[in-house]
Amino acid sequence: MKKIILLFLFLTSCLAISAQEITFGFGGSENPLINSDHSVTFVFNAPDVSKIEIEAPFLPAREIDTPWGKMTGSGRVSLPKSAEGIFSWTSDPLPSDFYTYSVYIDGVRVVDPNNVYQNRDVASLNNYFIIGGGQGDLFEVQDVPHGDVSQVWYPSPRAGMEQRRMSVYTPAGYNPSDKRIKYPVLYLMHGIGGDENSWMEGGRLPQVMDNLIASGKAEKMIVVVTNSNMSQQAAPGAYPGSRHRPQLMVPGNMDGQFEESFPDIVAFVESRFNVFKDKAHRALAGLSMGGFHTVYISANYPDLFDYVCSLSAALNDHSDTQAARDSYIYKDLDAKLDRQFRTAPKLYWMACGNADSLFSDNLTFCRKLDGIGARYSFIESEGGHTWQNWRDYLTRFVPLLFK
Amino acid sequence: MKKIILLFLFLTSCLAISAQEITFGFGGSENPLINSDHSVTFVFNAPDVSKIEIEAPFLPAREIDTPWGKMTGSGRVSLPKSAEGIFSWTSDPLPSDFYTYSVYIDGVRVVDPNNVYQNRDVASLNNYFIIGGGQGDLFEVQDVPHGDVSQVWYPSPRAGMEQRRMSVYTPAGYNPSDKRIKYPVLYLMHGIGGDENSWMEGGRLPQVMDNLIASGKAEKMIVVVTNSNMSQQAAPGAYPGSRHRPQLMVPGNMDGQFEESFPDIVAFVESRFNVFKDKAHRALAGLSMGGFHTVYISANYPDLFDYVCSLSAALNDHSDTQAARDSYIYKDLDAKLDRQFRTAPKLYWMACGNADSLFSDNLTFCRKLDGIGARYSFIESEGGHTWQNWRDYLTRFVPLLFK
Repeated sequence: MKKIILLFLFLTSCLAISAQEITFGFGGSENPLINSDHSVTFVFNAPDVSKIEIEAPFLPAREIDTPWGKMTGSGRVSLPKSAEGIFSWTSDPLPSDFYTYSVYIDGVRVVDPNNVYQNRDVASLNNYFIIGGGQGDLFEVQDVPHGDVSQVWYPSPRAGMEQRRMSVYTPAGYNPSDKRIKYPVLYLMHGIGGDENSWMEGGRLPQVMDNLIASGKAEKMIVVVTNSNMSQQAAPGAYPGSRHRPQLMVPGNMDGQFEESFPDIVAFVESRFNVFKDKAHRALAGLSMGGFHTVYISANYPDLFDYVCSLSAALNDHSDTQAARDSYIYKDLDAKLDRQFRTAPKLYWMACGNADSLFSDNLTFCRKLDGIGARYSFIESEGGHTWQNWRDYLTRFVPLLFK
Repeated sequence: MKKIILLFLFLTSCLAISAQEITFGFGGSENPLINSDHSVTFVFNAPDVSKIEIEAPFLPAREIDTPWGKMTGSGRVSLPKSAEGIFSWTSDPLPSDFYTYSVYIDGVRVVDPNNVYQNRDVASLNNYFIIGGGQGDLFEVQDVPHGDVSQVWYPSPRAGMEQRRMSVYTPAGYNPSDKRIKYPVLYLMHGIGGDENSWMEGGRLPQVMDNLIASGKAEKMIVVVTNSNMSQQAAPGAYPGSRHRPQLMVPGNMDGQFEESFPDIVAFVESRFNVFKDKAHRALAGLSMGGFHTVYISANYPDLFDYVCSLSAALNDHSDTQAARDSYIYKDLDAKLDRQFRTAPKLYWMACGNADSLFSDNLTFCRKLDGIGARYSFIESEGGHTWQNWRDYLTRFVPLLFK
């Protein structure tokens, strides 16, 4: 009896909390339920809602109307509703991977109230789940030594910013006090609209690194994820005056300024962390706009990086601003590549999906590399301009670094 | 014309991204709009939705039905809908502060799709906004030097865990390589169901510390936020097998184990960071369950902490488990307090809201302190067991530390 009274008092005290900011999800379920055949079931108890839909890249693609005409979009499914007001639906069995989705409640896009696991990408919040038993295991937290993740402020005089933020992964065992052990560094860049959190969240970088290092497939390394948006000190919400809806079309990112300021990042990392300070121990990689940055930064600073990896690089024409047309960073690329490959990087690795609108631009760039006799790898994958591909590329190129 | 074509190509390329995982919120608004009189306006374009409600601590409280009878809950308002399907509503003017809220769409609790700024507390996601011009300015990112925030893994042999995670704030200017400059440490603990992220998110700790330090009101210090749940290595989702709905009722947190393992945390911090290693440079604080931990850890290790701050401490009876009844941590509290106050801490500071169900337990504990002639401060605030109070207490006790 005493226990019951205590439980009551305890719950009463908890509900005082609940009353303010916490809900318990009384009767709520947890989405998705992962079934033994690797199908997933979503359940919503929502008697007053007329329509619930799930939108996800794992559903068959569909045509969507946009201001620019019909385009291909993520698939969407409408969930059947029972007489009791329960919506539920089960997918086909899914291959092992990391999956994102969102929910539409009577036409309004929301994150799933029955799944607190989500990440932000630009202005969108997506829920996620993981199907294990294969590739997905690399994206899950496993019982292996974990590296630390830090949000670190640094000065970037070349960018005119006293403070900018980077995210840093230091592998398990890294000890800032032990200067005898030095590490190589991978500098990793986001796409347009992304920021220093993108690879840590949607990219599952800490989990991939922990798992690849623990299995002996990757070297222990520090990974520095930059913020490459010249109008941002940090991710939206993390610097003064930034509490607005994040924008995809961040201006000033492809006119040479970020590339010019990149040595500030290297200088800071090499002063702050216990790292090797030579070309053989520096890698540069990025997705989409970050792939574009990868190509131009490595070509303009040919002595910095021995490992250069571009993922779905946005190698289309970016000369639409005067600043871009004026920047020395983008001038004479052929000559710069020629210089870069005279002391060729140990790895020059490109990957792009064959359904990506940037695929042909990547092939054109390969022809340019062929023209100067450059040694490189180009991986053609299935699929488009997606995080599914970028996560996969990460698991493929990280094992090739510093070997 | 070329610019228009490039813009089109660029948007096309972006929409290929959109098609997968990103939405742009075409025509979407941004919630809330903060008006010049500090009222806030919420707008939702949702023609197919019947009812949209906002629930928030800043609305007049209401009675809610629970399995345990009627209780006081956060207020809720139903937004009027226009003929065009636009829901909108404007609040009364609000005092400067940090505010949370959530949205109900046809009865389903969700985070606001028009506000990407949110934080997690236990199993609930809440949106937030800040009204500046007063206390709220302390919770906003200001143009001041920023400290770094790291998620750090450490071993806790006394907890039987090879890896546990803490969150660490290091103030601007902290340089791990410069061992000549040492810092004091505040150890800060969460409430039941919380974790090492709670103070960093809902507590606005990095912003409060940056702002108090920049204005000269607080000393430069390192803040270590523990995970105090003995069944967790880290926040839900961040350790193996933890990808389930976070629970408020985490077992085993109040039976002495966490308090016993606390010296592991101090030992790690003092080996990893450039810190002073004496009582005069260590502070201990916590909210709710963390306030309970604060009292017992400081009483059991009387030589560790010169600054002891309990916030809305859960000082009610927790002897409902055999482990708690058996633990030496909770035995002979009077004698331990007597010993602790023989070399009295420089600050023993308590705060509790007078509408908190734990208020009377805090007063009872004050009488106990009076009984041994202890010197302490007790702050009675308005309000209940809320983050609004805990954020406020943080801004009050941090300036008192290490002075």
